[in-house]
Amino acid sequence: MADFNAVAKAFVDFYYETFDRNRQELTPLYRENSMLTFEGQQTVGAAAITEKLVNLPFQKVGHRISTTDAQPADFERGSILVSVTGLLLIDEEQNPQMFSQTFHLIPEGGSYWVFNDIFRLNYA
Amino acid sequence: MADFNAVAKAFVDFYYETFDRNRQELTPLYRENSMLTFEGQQTVGAAAITEKLVNLPFQKVGHRISTTDAQPADFERGSILVSVTGLLLIDEEQNPQMFSQTFHLIPEGGSYWVFNDIFRLNYA
Repeated sequence: MADFNAVAKAFVDFYYETFDRNRQELTPLYRENSMLTFEGQQTVGAAAITEKLVNLPFQKVGHRISTTDAQPADFERGSILVSVTGLLLIDEEQNPQMFSQTFHLIPEGGSYWVFNDIFRLNYA
Repeated sequence: MADFNAVAKAFVDFYYETFDRNRQELTPLYRENSMLTFEGQQTVGAAAITEKLVNLPFQKVGHRISTTDAQPADFERGSILVSVTGLLLIDEEQNPQMFSQTFHLIPEGGSYWVFNDIFRLNYA
């Protein structure tokens, strides 16, 4: 089995760097049966998920990762659960918002794609 | 397939009600290969996980759930991913702390057990 912590770290670095630079480029990480629940709104499929992410109502965005935790989610096929907490800076806002996000990564051809993706802002 | 949102809601209600009343009683929710990552510390197995939870350094604890999101994590065996955000009140503290927690639930005999459990406090 691949080192799930190393996979999680590499995925998280790549995902948020890409998100902050050009979220259109996240499409290849999703498949037709991928699911995104973003602030309670459910979207299914790579095309719909990318459209959802690209149309989020901000131009500039920066993610600062606070914690990344990973666990094997399935010993047979080697899928990995990744849970992230961090801070989000949007456009010209000075105050970051806290967020948490969970990914379920499925191995395929030496790489991983996102089957499950759940995002929430954290309010006090 | 069971209604994964209904399963998630019932699980979350039961889990935190039990946690806040008597966390020793959470043992039956875990199995020998269950994993808990609590604030970055990894524990495996029902006995070790319960010991970890029971020995957390507080007497009274109350969870207030803000959001519960769920997705099917595996169409073949019907496992469910549940992501929770909420507030934690410990002992006589007046200021709640934000937390996020992710569970991966496996169906078995008409019920579900926890294979993956990742908990984090969220700091600004």
